[in-house]
Amino acid sequence: MAEHAAPAPPSRVRVERDAHEVEFGRIVSFSDGVFAIAITLLTLTLEVPKVPSGDDPALVRALAAEIPDLLAYAISFAVVGRFWIIHHRFYASLQSFDGRLMGGNLLYLALIVLVPFASDLLGKYGDESVAPMIYATILGLAGLVNTIMIRYSLRAGHISPHARAETLAFGGRLALVTPVVFFVSIPLALLSPFAAELCWLLSLFGARRMLRAAANSRGS
Amino acid sequence: MAEHAAPAPPSRVRVERDAHEVEFGRIVSFSDGVFAIAITLLTLTLEVPKVPSGDDPALVRALAAEIPDLLAYAISFAVVGRFWIIHHRFYASLQSFDGRLMGGNLLYLALIVLVPFASDLLGKYGDESVAPMIYATILGLAGLVNTIMIRYSLRAGHISPHARAETLAFGGRLALVTPVVFFVSIPLALLSPFAAELCWLLSLFGARRMLRAAANSRGS
Amino acid sequence: MAEHAAPAPPSRVRVERDAHEVEFGRIVSFSDGVFAIAITLLTLTLEVPKVPSGDDPALVRALAAEIPDLLAYAISFAVVGRFWIIHHRFYASLQSFDGRLMGGNLLYLALIVLVPFASDLLGKYGDESVAPMIYATILGLAGLVNTIMIRYSLRAGHISPHARAETLAFGGRLALVTPVVFFVSIPLALLSPFAAELCWLLSLFGARRMLRAAANSRGS
Amino acid sequence: MAEHAAPAPPSRVRVERDAHEVEFGRIVSFSDGVFAIAITLLTLTLEVPKVPSGDDPALVRALAAEIPDLLAYAISFAVVGRFWIIHHRFYASLQSFDGRLMGGNLLYLALIVLVPFASDLLGKYGDESVAPMIYATILGLAGLVNTIMIRYSLRAGHISPHARAETLAFGGRLALVTPVVFFVSIPLALLSPFAAELCWLLSLFGARRMLRAAANSRGS
Repeated sequence: MAEHAAPAPPSRVRVERDAHEVEFGRIVSFSDGVFAIAITLLTLTLEVPKVPSGDDPALVRALAAEIPDLLAYAISFAVVGRFWIIHHRFYASLQSFDGRLMGGNLLYLALIVLVPFASDLLGKYGDESVAPMIYATILGLAGLVNTIMIRYSLRAGHISPHARAETLAFGGRLALVTPVVFFVSIPLALLSPFAAELCWLLSLFGARRMLRAAANSRGS
Repeated sequence: MAEHAAPAPPSRVRVERDAHEVEFGRIVSFSDGVFAIAITLLTLTLEVPKVPSGDDPALVRALAAEIPDLLAYAISFAVVGRFWIIHHRFYASLQSFDGRLMGGNLLYLALIVLVPFASDLLGKYGDESVAPMIYATILGLAGLVNTIMIRYSLRAGHISPHARAETLAFGGRLALVTPVVFFVSIPLALLSPFAAELCWLLSLFGARRMLRAAANSRGS
Repeated sequence: MAEHAAPAPPSRVRVERDAHEVEFGRIVSFSDGVFAIAITLLTLTLEVPKVPSGDDPALVRALAAEIPDLLAYAISFAVVGRFWIIHHRFYASLQSFDGRLMGGNLLYLALIVLVPFASDLLGKYGDESVAPMIYATILGLAGLVNTIMIRYSLRAGHISPHARAETLAFGGRLALVTPVVFFVSIPLALLSPFAAELCWLLSLFGARRMLRAAANSRGS
Repeated sequence: MAEHAAPAPPSRVRVERDAHEVEFGRIVSFSDGVFAIAITLLTLTLEVPKVPSGDDPALVRALAAEIPDLLAYAISFAVVGRFWIIHHRFYASLQSFDGRLMGGNLLYLALIVLVPFASDLLGKYGDESVAPMIYATILGLAGLVNTIMIRYSLRAGHISPHARAETLAFGGRLALVTPVVFFVSIPLALLSPFAAELCWLLSLFGARRMLRAAANSRGS
């Protein structure tokens, strides 16, 4: 079961998935739980306004003032949803894992659960530079950690052979579009928060092309 | 495994359930997690009042003022609970899925997690038009996306043959009762919020008849 | 597979567990999710105090004032934890289920998720009658719905034969101790909130004896 | 199936894992749910500041004031993440369980869900003695309960033979490093909160060495 001639450092001890299906399933279900909670907490940015009872126009105005929060919610849901789909496909392709991958997964989840805070900040202060800068930093780091985990798994032989073509798409150049776009948008936000936000749409297109490339290699 | 002669567009690449049970299970468990959190967050509308310590009558009055919140909680729990049961039956009948269905499911969940906000709004401002209008919009959209997903799955052959009769009930005309009732109640709420709320009870009866029709086709 | 000669009403259509393991698993995992969230939300009663920075004695006093909240948290965790264990054992003994049982389970969960609110209320206003009255009502109803579900399952033949002896303990007279104790404590709380709270300890002993009776019938 | 000649006390009735895989899976998935929620609630310590709109420097200052909260989040995420990994490995090694272990697990989870509160307190009042004292008490108790559960399982024969060597590392002397370090830091915090916090880093090294020892015994 050991692939290396010399004893592996402990954090790289391979655990085969077949022999540890329950253990593997827990990593996946814990990750799903964290994603599900993070994606649900995104809605906490929407607060029920406090206006005098019976003052319908005041309530409508207060709710209209939350439209940026609703947009931040929609964008963040789309972004975290895509991260989840990629995580889902990535883990479906694993045939083994090790301590490094588990540590990387925890770091990745630690960034994902910061998204509701960053999204709330963006909804409330989207016109000011610091809010999109924090948002882009967190999502850029999440994308980067994700790509590093996938590349590491490809190199370490954790990807099952029949899923290799598909996973290459998630670990290839297109996968770097998301973190690069987010990191480039950080200085851009100093000049114009709005330009930075436009920039993120590019990352969604990058993710879309990557998912298509992966789907094509799977379908063929 | 490909059913089409021409290569399918990537978002329609079929994935068979048997060969991807873990991957399929994750979609289901992620959805369950989101439903479980959304249904639990419904209770956050109930706030512990802040009254001077030792003033029992003031506490009772403050709690009595939360009865509309409790009603909104009860209605929303019933509605989200029914959505969950339908989701549960629908996914039990799937034999395959594709990228479109996963995207549709994320959109559907994005609407479900907005229900606690809408429900809180309804509990606090149920007498004013805008609160039931927002509530009806979110639930109407959720019902519509749900019905579209079921119809798409029937057409695309994702439903396993033995569950087809049951699923037809969830994708048939009765399934449109819920979204139609909610959408009709939106303009009605401008005239009378209370009339709109009464209207929703009809949707519960529609859902009930649909579940019965499905159960009958299953039992036979 | 149908046990009845005449066609069953739709809500009583039996679904065998073996043939629907995934569907059954989802009810269980959804319930577990709701329990896990409800039990975690219990801690929201503990709030980080707001005192001037550097004023250690004020912080200590503010934290000491939260000891009733901590007690309410501990009691509620123990109670919800026991409810979860009983739910866990009950579902482990099911060999089939029907629409009624699913509806009953949703109603039961709707009561469980109210416990964090009731517990918070109890921590803040434990000296006043209304708080223990609400707490006892919710937990009494939860215990009652639970016992009704177990008795119904025994009667409807949903319990697998080898688990029947154990489940009888959960559906027998001892199972009524919990709801009866909580309901009796409601009027008692009008006279003395403290007496009502003492009374609940009895319910824990009742649950303990019931779990022991169940374990004995399992072990033998 | 009974291992003892004399009848076992009910709380020690053994349940074999193979015969009760679903029941066992629920304990694990419930625990995962609680861990996932607790780890996500850690971020609630980060609050979106309330500053006048358009005042970028004020927003930056307010966010900078939350850096201790971010540190508390990072430390707590690392600590709870490690607890989760150990829980994960421990449960993977179980071949049976009993009522005591389930009770111990609930007590353990009751401590884990207190971490977000303690972490928030630490982020807000890290300079004052009482905050690190409470944090260290909760984490020390969690580590202690964890070690007691593992030792009990080893003694009671719940650990499957092939996992025994690995589990000995989690139940051995190195496993006591974490609770001992936390308990020693409690009086230390009276003298210097900062010294107590430095002290905790030692616990991370202890956990690291323990995980390595476990991995080595597994790899060999």
